[in-house]
Amino acid sequence: MVTDHDIELAQQRITRHVRRTPTMATKPGELGIDHDLTLKLECLQHTGSFKPRGAFNLALASEIPASGLIAASGGNHGVAVAYVARQLGYPAEIFVPAISPKIKVEKIAALDAALHIGGAVYAEAQAACDTRQAATGALTLHPYDAIETVAGQATCGRELQSQHPEIDTVVVAVGGGGLAAGFAAAYRDSAKLVTVEPDTSRCLGAALDAGEPVKVTVAGVAADSLGASQVGEVPWSLLSKHTDTSVTVSDDAITAARKAAFAELQVVLEPGGAAALAALMTGAYTPEPGERVAVILCGANADPGDLV
Amino acid sequence: MVTDHDIELAQQRITRHVRRTPTMATKPGELGIDHDLTLKLECLQHTGSFKPRGAFNLALASEIPASGLIAASGGNHGVAVAYVARQLGYPAEIFVPAISPKIKVEKIAALDAALHIGGAVYAEAQAACDTRQAATGALTLHPYDAIETVAGQATCGRELQSQHPEIDTVVVAVGGGGLAAGFAAAYRDSAKLVTVEPDTSRCLGAALDAGEPVKVTVAGVAADSLGASQVGEVPWSLLSKHTDTSVTVSDDAITAARKAAFAELQVVLEPGGAAALAALMTGAYTPEPGERVAVILCGANADPGDLV
Repeated sequence: MVTDHDIELAQQRITRHVRRTPTMATKPGELGIDHDLTLKLECLQHTGSFKPRGAFNLALASEIPASGLIAASGGNHGVAVAYVARQLGYPAEIFVPAISPKIKVEKIAALDAALHIGGAVYAEAQAACDTRQAATGALTLHPYDAIETVAGQATCGRELQSQHPEIDTVVVAVGGGGLAAGFAAAYRDSAKLVTVEPDTSRCLGAALDAGEPVKVTVAGVAADSLGASQVGEVPWSLLSKHTDTSVTVSDDAITAARKAAFAELQVVLEPGGAAALAALMTGAYTPEPGERVAVILCGANADPGDLV
Repeated sequence: MVTDHDIELAQQRITRHVRRTPTMATKPGELGIDHDLTLKLECLQHTGSFKPRGAFNLALASEIPASGLIAASGGNHGVAVAYVARQLGYPAEIFVPAISPKIKVEKIAALDAALHIGGAVYAEAQAACDTRQAATGALTLHPYDAIETVAGQATCGRELQSQHPEIDTVVVAVGGGGLAAGFAAAYRDSAKLVTVEPDTSRCLGAALDAGEPVKVTVAGVAADSLGASQVGEVPWSLLSKHTDTSVTVSDDAITAARKAAFAELQVVLEPGGAAALAALMTGAYTPEPGERVAVILCGANADPGDLV
């Protein structure tokens, strides 16, 4: 379980290292959504996603060896670990599968991390990472299944609470569940939690159906950020209790949400970062009249060249 | 002159129609700037630039005929007038020169305005617009040289004052001078005003040199938004008194600022929208230690495909 104290410790550790990301209001009719929204622009966070919050907190809560940090990640977590290592003055090694988007791989390389591209899928990159970690003793930062990771992501929830104490409902995308669990930890039952997954990668939905975490296949346009094959144990401990509504969206809806966010807001989102917005645009989640809804736009790391 | 009362009227008229755009802090070292900054993300305004503020205010202060609104503009003002017309329920005709960027022309068309593409340069589009206006009697909205236009842009300054009352210095780009004059009107001498122009389009710098508005040639990557051949009379009445420092930046510096804003902030800027940031990145303006500096990121309407 992630306690209020865990979140306070996270705030103390990471506030100097992360951006307090802004929010912006939309009115009924914008983005084709007949409801006003508060958008949390976490896509403007360092590295282009919320991931540095959890990565900084886990790293700073640990003893970091001279061999530094190591992670396997197809994307945003890898960029975040590379960024955390550079900011804290340690080396980093990142193992990415061949399917990782170019923009993410280039960001990792630009942060001076040792980049290993190999394996067709995430599991193969993870195996190579584990082998290397056993040799170097570097600190592995899990992308979502650690109390400190989730407590770090919960600081995004604390920020939103301080920016908009009136919020009734938080709509957030789920990959491995770290960010959504962070909001669950921050809000407990003080706001309604709506989780959004691609219908091609729904590990939380499947776990809620089964009553426990189960393996799912993953695919689709958002697989590089939301394509976890099983919800994490730490996230599940929170999401199983605090998820009020779990919905899915199609790849087409995600792509439409990305395009609308750029056309109407000039905000660049990656597919995973647009999934929560897609749930409002499609009506997968329809707020009640007067419901004060926050939508977390959690990642920007996609080539924006297809947005115009 | 633009009075506090003019700005209050503008706020009353347009607040319901424009976005309260967010701000975001950067720390020393980010973007290669050894100083902390407050960024005003006016690039997230409706239509992708600050222009709807002035256009709404001028339209709402006027009697709008059934023939609607008409304007000649190579870009952001044209998009804004088309948007204002649609929001207020009037037709619009927009005359754009052939050099207008595709993204701006497409936005005008998407807003259901009657779009006339003709003439190699702005002056030819303006002549065609004038001829048509004489025939239809539509209301012409000037992009910068009207009290209501400048008072509308001044609401961006009022927003910044309420968001960050501590600001010592505002750094803002100048085309015809409407936005900068809006900040001059909002702040008077309560903050230092630093104006930034491309070294290829410096109508304000030339006017300050000459002691009066003079014609300049315009060119460069930001010409579609900052390429006014002469500073407006209304802007000049404010900028001649309240400009503390006037600097220029090169095309290369503007392009570098665009790329840095996307790489480090995930914020899309057009060249004109990045000019103020370029002044900080190049040291064209170097703040004193402790100086609390706001940089206005005022436009996003460029194809983001070259940012990665």
